[in-house]
Amino acid sequence: MRVEIWSDIACPWCYVGKARFEKALREFPHRDEVEVVHRSFELDPGRAKDDVQPVITMLTEKYGMSPAQAEAGEDNLGAQAAAEGLDYRTRGRDHGSTFDMHRLLHLAKEHGRQERLLDLLYRANFADERSVFDDDERLVELAVAAGLAEEGVRAVLADPRAYADEVRADEREAAQLGANGVPFFVLDRTYGVSGAQPAEVFARALAQAYGERTPLRPVGSAADGSTDGADACGPDGCAVPQR
Amino acid sequence: MRVEIWSDIACPWCYVGKARFEKALREFPHRDEVEVVHRSFELDPGRAKDDVQPVITMLTEKYGMSPAQAEAGEDNLGAQAAAEGLDYRTRGRDHGSTFDMHRLLHLAKEHGRQERLLDLLYRANFADERSVFDDDERLVELAVAAGLAEEGVRAVLADPRAYADEVRADEREAAQLGANGVPFFVLDRTYGVSGAQPAEVFARALAQAYGERTPLRPVGSAADGSTDGADACGPDGCAVPQR
Repeated sequence: MRVEIWSDIACPWCYVGKARFEKALREFPHRDEVEVVHRSFELDPGRAKDDVQPVITMLTEKYGMSPAQAEAGEDNLGAQAAAEGLDYRTRGRDHGSTFDMHRLLHLAKEHGRQERLLDLLYRANFADERSVFDDDERLVELAVAAGLAEEGVRAVLADPRAYADEVRADEREAAQLGANGVPFFVLDRTYGVSGAQPAEVFARALAQAYGERTPLRPVGSAADGSTDGADACGPDGCAVPQR
Repeated sequence: MRVEIWSDIACPWCYVGKARFEKALREFPHRDEVEVVHRSFELDPGRAKDDVQPVITMLTEKYGMSPAQAEAGEDNLGAQAAAEGLDYRTRGRDHGSTFDMHRLLHLAKEHGRQERLLDLLYRANFADERSVFDDDERLVELAVAAGLAEEGVRAVLADPRAYADEVRADEREAAQLGANGVPFFVLDRTYGVSGAQPAEVFARALAQAYGERTPLRPVGSAADGSTDGADACGPDGCAVPQR
């Protein structure tokens, strides 16, 4: 069974939702059969790499909140994060482009380090004092801490095309699946869960999707439309063509 | 829509089946919505890298064929390949381990070069005079021709663990899906096509799978069990938690 999770490093609900999903997954009896794949979604895809600003400033400028409203929102999010055991720095956090982080997450995926890097990026963005947006050396440090080879990380950061198509493809797919916000969870391409739902909801979705796994339906050239198994190679060799 | 194809470079029916599938895909009206992913399957997973022998010898020793039977089989396969416009060398071809080639195909996948490398490996194995099994320099040459960076290719060949887990994971998944031979085609994890079926069968499978794409079913915490869309971030900012 496969769970795909679209998220953005700059998305507080993604940080919280990941913890809630993982709580459900830890208690799911068939967790060993669940493969989790993280997919890219940028909340602010047009933003330039050097366009970094404090979150509170961004919220007041972009959404017209008062500073007090923006700060109350951060305090609330901090409380939600704390309830999941997550650190959250409610003041002084930055907002910026996450494109390079998504590109690195695709590199990490190829080396089985995606989950680890995503956790480190979330923590760096939401809990640590240092901004994660305008500092490639910090990204190198985090990616190396996640187990990636430094040289490969630097090569990806130096080439803006590296894994760019993969990020865009994830984003196109999110749109095709009807996601207009994140986090967005897709189970076996059958069930969708939108938002940082309570762990019970994820538990229900896991159980439903698991219960409805269906065997593949064969399509073939045999009389009944099924696959006749001809013209294949297996442990006993290759079928010899009948002509 | 996603089509996964399990195959082995040493599998003549995979070489032929890929061409038949592609014929159907070229004529499929929604081909732009089809993503093709190649997955690993070794017909001879236990074979050592330096254990290379002529195909005809392998067929007589392993399956107890007479040389004449083995040669007739190769002639038949060559005719099937020719019917799809593929070159096929019916005498003097080798058999050996394809593990390193599968590892390179996983590297190539990360760089969008999987399809190109697979085509080059098939042609090298089935059409060219030189054996592709015991010659890492040849694999480097082919991978570079497919567009991969030489350094990365050499690093993968030098480290037997690189992408090994990905190869094994593909093979486990094939077993879980009920494949005991290749080529094995899986459409949206719903329909399965086993073997190098005629292009009409692939056309039918594509149309069936496409026609039955279903929208995601939402799971959520709203009263009707649907997703209420709360606790998410989108283009208009992040929902503010209600506590």
